[in-house]
Amino acid sequence: MIDLRSDTVTKPTEEMRKAMYEAEVGDDVYGEDPTVRLLEEKAADILGKEAALLVTSGTQGNQIAVLTHCRPGQEIILEAESHIFYYESGAVAALGGVQTRTIAGVRGAMNPESVKNAIRGVDIHYPVTGLISIENTHNRAGGAVVPVENMKEIYEIAKANQVPVHIDGARLFNAAEGAGVEVKDFAQYADTVQFCLSKGLGAPVGSIIAGSKEFIHSARKWRKMLGGGMRQAGIIAAPGLIALTKMKDRLGEDHANARKLAEEIDNIDGLRVENKVETNIVVVDVKELGVNSEEFVAHLYSEGVLAGGFGPTSVRFVTNFDVSDAQLEDAIAAILIAAKKCK
Amino acid sequence: MIDLRSDTVTKPTEEMRKAMYEAEVGDDVYGEDPTVRLLEEKAADILGKEAALLVTSGTQGNQIAVLTHCRPGQEIILEAESHIFYYESGAVAALGGVQTRTIAGVRGAMNPESVKNAIRGVDIHYPVTGLISIENTHNRAGGAVVPVENMKEIYEIAKANQVPVHIDGARLFNAAEGAGVEVKDFAQYADTVQFCLSKGLGAPVGSIIAGSKEFIHSARKWRKMLGGGMRQAGIIAAPGLIALTKMKDRLGEDHANARKLAEEIDNIDGLRVENKVETNIVVVDVKELGVNSEEFVAHLYSEGVLAGGFGPTSVRFVTNFDVSDAQLEDAIAAILIAAKKCK
Amino acid sequence: MIDLRSDTVTKPTEEMRKAMYEAEVGDDVYGEDPTVRLLEEKAADILGKEAALLVTSGTQGNQIAVLTHCRPGQEIILEAESHIFYYESGAVAALGGVQTRTIAGVRGAMNPESVKNAIRGVDIHYPVTGLISIENTHNRAGGAVVPVENMKEIYEIAKANQVPVHIDGARLFNAAEGAGVEVKDFAQYADTVQFCLSKGLGAPVGSIIAGSKEFIHSARKWRKMLGGGMRQAGIIAAPGLIALTKMKDRLGEDHANARKLAEEIDNIDGLRVENKVETNIVVVDVKELGVNSEEFVAHLYSEGVLAGGFGPTSVRFVTNFDVSDAQLEDAIAAILIAAKKCK
Amino acid sequence: MIDLRSDTVTKPTEEMRKAMYEAEVGDDVYGEDPTVRLLEEKAADILGKEAALLVTSGTQGNQIAVLTHCRPGQEIILEAESHIFYYESGAVAALGGVQTRTIAGVRGAMNPESVKNAIRGVDIHYPVTGLISIENTHNRAGGAVVPVENMKEIYEIAKANQVPVHIDGARLFNAAEGAGVEVKDFAQYADTVQFCLSKGLGAPVGSIIAGSKEFIHSARKWRKMLGGGMRQAGIIAAPGLIALTKMKDRLGEDHANARKLAEEIDNIDGLRVENKVETNIVVVDVKELGVNSEEFVAHLYSEGVLAGGFGPTSVRFVTNFDVSDAQLEDAIAAILIAAKKCK
Repeated sequence: MIDLRSDTVTKPTEEMRKAMYEAEVGDDVYGEDPTVRLLEEKAADILGKEAALLVTSGTQGNQIAVLTHCRPGQEIILEAESHIFYYESGAVAALGGVQTRTIAGVRGAMNPESVKNAIRGVDIHYPVTGLISIENTHNRAGGAVVPVENMKEIYEIAKANQVPVHIDGARLFNAAEGAGVEVKDFAQYADTVQFCLSKGLGAPVGSIIAGSKEFIHSARKWRKMLGGGMRQAGIIAAPGLIALTKMKDRLGEDHANARKLAEEIDNIDGLRVENKVETNIVVVDVKELGVNSEEFVAHLYSEGVLAGGFGPTSVRFVTNFDVSDAQLEDAIAAILIAAKKCK
Repeated sequence: MIDLRSDTVTKPTEEMRKAMYEAEVGDDVYGEDPTVRLLEEKAADILGKEAALLVTSGTQGNQIAVLTHCRPGQEIILEAESHIFYYESGAVAALGGVQTRTIAGVRGAMNPESVKNAIRGVDIHYPVTGLISIENTHNRAGGAVVPVENMKEIYEIAKANQVPVHIDGARLFNAAEGAGVEVKDFAQYADTVQFCLSKGLGAPVGSIIAGSKEFIHSARKWRKMLGGGMRQAGIIAAPGLIALTKMKDRLGEDHANARKLAEEIDNIDGLRVENKVETNIVVVDVKELGVNSEEFVAHLYSEGVLAGGFGPTSVRFVTNFDVSDAQLEDAIAAILIAAKKCK
Repeated sequence: MIDLRSDTVTKPTEEMRKAMYEAEVGDDVYGEDPTVRLLEEKAADILGKEAALLVTSGTQGNQIAVLTHCRPGQEIILEAESHIFYYESGAVAALGGVQTRTIAGVRGAMNPESVKNAIRGVDIHYPVTGLISIENTHNRAGGAVVPVENMKEIYEIAKANQVPVHIDGARLFNAAEGAGVEVKDFAQYADTVQFCLSKGLGAPVGSIIAGSKEFIHSARKWRKMLGGGMRQAGIIAAPGLIALTKMKDRLGEDHANARKLAEEIDNIDGLRVENKVETNIVVVDVKELGVNSEEFVAHLYSEGVLAGGFGPTSVRFVTNFDVSDAQLEDAIAAILIAAKKCK
Repeated sequence: MIDLRSDTVTKPTEEMRKAMYEAEVGDDVYGEDPTVRLLEEKAADILGKEAALLVTSGTQGNQIAVLTHCRPGQEIILEAESHIFYYESGAVAALGGVQTRTIAGVRGAMNPESVKNAIRGVDIHYPVTGLISIENTHNRAGGAVVPVENMKEIYEIAKANQVPVHIDGARLFNAAEGAGVEVKDFAQYADTVQFCLSKGLGAPVGSIIAGSKEFIHSARKWRKMLGGGMRQAGIIAAPGLIALTKMKDRLGEDHANARKLAEEIDNIDGLRVENKVETNIVVVDVKELGVNSEEFVAHLYSEGVLAGGFGPTSVRFVTNFDVSDAQLEDAIAAILIAAKKCK
């Protein structure tokens, strides 16, 4: 099977496996795991932040950010189909008591003016705006890159209103690659950043949150409460270090593959690429085939390709380093067959 | 001063005061206040529900409804400027751990198709849709009546998906008067209803929530937790009974006054009525005067009229039974002067 | 029926009813109810605090205090059978996310050394101690007065550790009467105080919380979120003012009645007063009669006396201003008969 | 340094490292990691439960259990110094809105009669008892084993009252070894069980929760919300499998070492073993040396031994498989020197 469901399915490389095998470890609850420390320092450095913290998933990183920034009775401004709102099981309210105020974005980017208007004034009837969160790249917008300029404008509005900004950068390295900038260029316009080691970067497990020393100090306690305090976590950090230092440089291949995949799909009768492919995600509308996404995914499955439903008639393909050039060719051929069978 | 800020400012009538003076009371925490019981039975009856509960405010009624229907990790679907989302300080998340999923309505009414699409499927990444709430009349939509037909459609979708429906009917009697129907006609398309005794109905304090016996039994406990369990609450119920039985029949006067006010304002240069006036609320855009709402409210104040800011250049007027016909004339004259002074 | 179940059952006096009838009112959500303002100023003054806030019940006052002082992840130190822990339906955790750390007291008073030891140090595994709460008088300790000296010691420990102190003074005026001091004498050793207008003081509805201006400002918002923001709340404040200014001076009568009741009961074969009667509560052990509390309460009911179960074989009697001297005599006679019937 | 601070400090064995290196993995969020599945099945089987779930820590396992069993407004009965109450940063209230009702145990075991009395009746003032939790072995009671018979009695009371029972079995395999029974023998008297792979069993990271299929299904969602859903989690499960199948059989060595350590320490002037050593924990009172625990820990550190403060004058030593027989001899010698230096 050729797995294009997500970049989360990537398996650790031989080098990562070796790193785990050899990892120098300690008890990270006591702050004594040297590999975790190294990863956290490296991550903070790459993001241009004072400190960083290893967490077990992007969701955990985002939730800890919300819990650390906000308290019950506050409101978070975020895009209407952002991961925190759409895909985190309502945890922001359930765990943090924080209300979500959504703004529909364009290609994942919220209009700065809309953000400004959504910041609450002082009134006994209003929650207090406690956080603005930006997802970059934006998953449901098809891996769209939120431009640095957009982030800058929102950040300035946020600062003028004393509201912190968080980046849900599960795929921030894809954004950097896509925009031809450094992750730092985005991170400078946020107080805190979360990114995943386990998606395009290929680590088996783990994400990072970064921010000020004070923020990370508080975040560490919330991580403990969520059960994310681990012992010899160096076994997770070791492949994470490889992800962070080596794998990030090969994301361009995934993006090129995605563009190629999109071009080929757009030539297939009955299929239409919905998104402008900026990174590693291709969203395809199958409506004209007269099937829904579930049915088309089943057809693909029969042809040896795994993809994911992404809406009633939308199917998502995500390129990743476990899919070779040859496999991509095979996948394109399989998609063509599947489309024909629907007719 | 002529107070058109809200219908909440109405003072108890002589009859209400007498009712308080004479109220037969008991300890309502023990369920022994006969006046409270009578009010609750009467309210349930008028709404066509099994049982009802006296609470201290519309916010409390709404919050208790959410707390009783939902649990943390669930999501409530509601209009993007509905009171529960907009004006209850984020309590739905802070107290209930419930995520808000907003839909922008048209004149306060959500598109049933949009509601259907917003109901979550089964997925580990999704919160569970726990409640659909409809505000009727809709305050920020200018006292718009959500039509019975719209409610019916949403209710049918809700039932097909096993999701309960709540009416935030703070001004439900205005909706009934505006639509020329009974409150029951709305209430039949909801599992639970909240309405206020203290707005257009004129009681000094209090709201009602109604629903099944089982719901009210659970709601009673949440009311206790919020501190809404009161002792000789008959002193609140007594004027509430008058509000419920007598005052509801005079809401038509407020509506006629609002229409009159709107017509006159629309004739004033630089002022424009924003909403279709269906009930007792008139929203006026003052932009053309070259002032913001705060400034225009200050001008009105100088002329002896109290109104409320409702947006950057929007001002809200609410007719109520404490504003006589003569006062309405005076108010119109004052508004004209204020508008002229801005030029 | 002679009602000795609680001092909550007292009905408003003629004077209170008249006060309601005549109350000058306004919209208290706008801060415009003059009677509420007067009550709040008076209450703050009597307690020696900067500001006060009218709330609808003791539970609401306590919960608002916890919500305002603490945030999730904090811990409150309180007596093991205190009202907040025992009788508020777990609201402190459900609404505030605050963990309860209980200390078994002696006659309601916690040992200051135990309080000191219960304050958490700094450790990632520990919640942060956010509040110490003292109930005075202590209901389940039989209306016991927590001595001023005990409060002083705890307050000093609290201050040395930067932890605020709250008094659940639902019956603080009884404590003052019982100890022969002013409520201020207790309140000086706490940051915030809650007391009820509706128990021994006889108002139909309402409690007060008091503290610094800043605290009350924040508390006002939490009150709104709990739905305790009321409109023409002057109708509640008016009898509350009478409770506060006149009724407090007659609590001595209730205490004398309680002592008398206790003495007489102690002479009845098979009954034993469990508590040292310092205020208006008498707790009686009925074990020797061979019945449980429920059964004895039923016997009393047959004889025209209402009392409350307070444990497997414990029954509580609370004297109050609705029970006259003659009724007290009758009640004693009825208790004697009930006891005899059990034999 | 000889590290006796905790059994959490153990480093993965060569065999575990190899297992990680070779682990067959998949995306566990999709339920496709074969190593995780194998571990979960094995764990469920050993505990005699229908299903199990890999989590990242004991705290996460406990919190998920509470979140799955309970909802806000409920109360959990647990021992006064149990880990959930004492060492989880108040998460049970902060995340779950659940009130803690503590019972002081004897050697970690709660009196069944006390548990029975602590179960709440039906009353609007009471939280609902939602869970009884038993910690076994009990850390702060010095690794004491809660006897099977005690668990059976509490379980029967719980069942009679429809309250579920959870075991915080972070060191349940130590309890089984200590009592000479199987973990199943304990687990049969609980609905859900949590145990750690990462303490005495030596895995670098991870814990297990087990229960009914339905429970684990719900728990999986809460794990996602806490951010415990991981991708190629097989790298954690692989060493976990070795911990579960091989390491459990060598816990007897740790216990023998602990007994030996205790005997030798008891012979040292000024030191006194506080606990009956049943498993791998030795708690030592250093009061007679005239130092506090912090000072004695510092002395030990100078002599090359790491131990942990466990109270004002209490120091905890935990034997573990990273401490060889020779090192234990050295540690004993070092403790003797440290004690002498204090005199």
